[in-house]
Amino acid sequence: MKQNRLKQDAGVKAVDFIKSGMTIGLGTGSTVTYLVEELGKRVQSGQLDVDCVATSQRTFEQASNLGIKMHALSDVNQIDLTIDGADEIDLNFQGIKGGGAAQTYEKIVALNSQKNIWIVDESKMVDQLGAFPLPLEVVPFGWKQLFDRLHKENLNPHLRCDEKHQPILTDMNNYVIDLYLQKIMHPHLLANWLNQQTGIIEHGLFLDLVNTVIVGRLYGPEAIENVR
Amino acid sequence: MKQNRLKQDAGVKAVDFIKSGMTIGLGTGSTVTYLVEELGKRVQSGQLDVDCVATSQRTFEQASNLGIKMHALSDVNQIDLTIDGADEIDLNFQGIKGGGAAQTYEKIVALNSQKNIWIVDESKMVDQLGAFPLPLEVVPFGWKQLFDRLHKENLNPHLRCDEKHQPILTDMNNYVIDLYLQKIMHPHLLANWLNQQTGIIEHGLFLDLVNTVIVGRLYGPEAIENVR
Repeated sequence: MKQNRLKQDAGVKAVDFIKSGMTIGLGTGSTVTYLVEELGKRVQSGQLDVDCVATSQRTFEQASNLGIKMHALSDVNQIDLTIDGADEIDLNFQGIKGGGAAQTYEKIVALNSQKNIWIVDESKMVDQLGAFPLPLEVVPFGWKQLFDRLHKENLNPHLRCDEKHQPILTDMNNYVIDLYLQKIMHPHLLANWLNQQTGIIEHGLFLDLVNTVIVGRLYGPEAIENVR
Repeated sequence: MKQNRLKQDAGVKAVDFIKSGMTIGLGTGSTVTYLVEELGKRVQSGQLDVDCVATSQRTFEQASNLGIKMHALSDVNQIDLTIDGADEIDLNFQGIKGGGAAQTYEKIVALNSQKNIWIVDESKMVDQLGAFPLPLEVVPFGWKQLFDRLHKENLNPHLRCDEKHQPILTDMNNYVIDLYLQKIMHPHLLANWLNQQTGIIEHGLFLDLVNTVIVGRLYGPEAIENVR
């Protein structure tokens, strides 16, 4: 319950960064749900007039139902600001995302955004990435051979399955392999190697992307700027 | 007609490289059709007993109908030999594939194969890659932003469409963007950059992959070994 309150604080605080006239990217996940809820209120009350795109069907529907103007990504010329959650953020502002299996769409929106804000409760702030398993969205065809290659590279892969032991499917009908690494010593090296692997559509390392992190803390939400 | 004869020569010749007991990867395209036809004959006559995987639904069906034992890629432990076509092969044995929009599955099978043979008519042998447009399989979500990024990098992108001007879909329900480059001066640099781009699932550059090329020529098929 306490964690939900911190998420809500961060989500509500993030709406202060949204100005009328902007095109906004809306992320996915429990913290973003609070953001969308608050944004919906300010749109309905006439305080804010914005256009939005979403990183998942789930967010698209929540926002549409609240009267927020939603668009397909291909129909907007640019995104001014994207606000999304994160599963881990380290001291260098590098992140892991994809616990919700939406990291490909999330990364596409983030990369096409002028500015990125991540909203998290304080449990997501870590010294070093890796305790959270790193998700890979992978092509189902040949997943076993890819899995073996990851295993041989000592990347401790696990195919993400549902309670019936069937592989879970992303919005794009792909599989998810989670890498249980404990510590990611060299995030850029790892990202580079993963990018070269045929069969991996996208990995959950979000490097050099975020501008501002809003952390829900017990004494209130804190906005931290990434001044690199 | 002449070209079809050269394709057939190359396809039939390739069957000589198949031995009983092998697991074979079967590619996609017009030249491979001749290979599968000939393989079917030798299987039916009892000359060859092999297990196969295919890089497309089309090849899977053709081979199954001819009585060839077909398997899902995830169900085989290794592939001994893959035989596939190519759209261009240069003097360094580097290739472009994907004219048939199947390059992702083709590359996955090729990478998991002990040995690779490409079968082509002589028109596919070039000094330098690039006259054939380089195909990219891309995520439909955000394709327009990716297209703009490719355009800014002077890679001359074209979205591949059908006669009704709708984007064609791959077996994985993705789009294809063709890069009209004329000359690819630095294939490894290009491949490396394309691998880093979010939204590109796989590109059609097949580098350092082929062991033997069988070329259909007017005077008969010629097998050329890549001795690197």
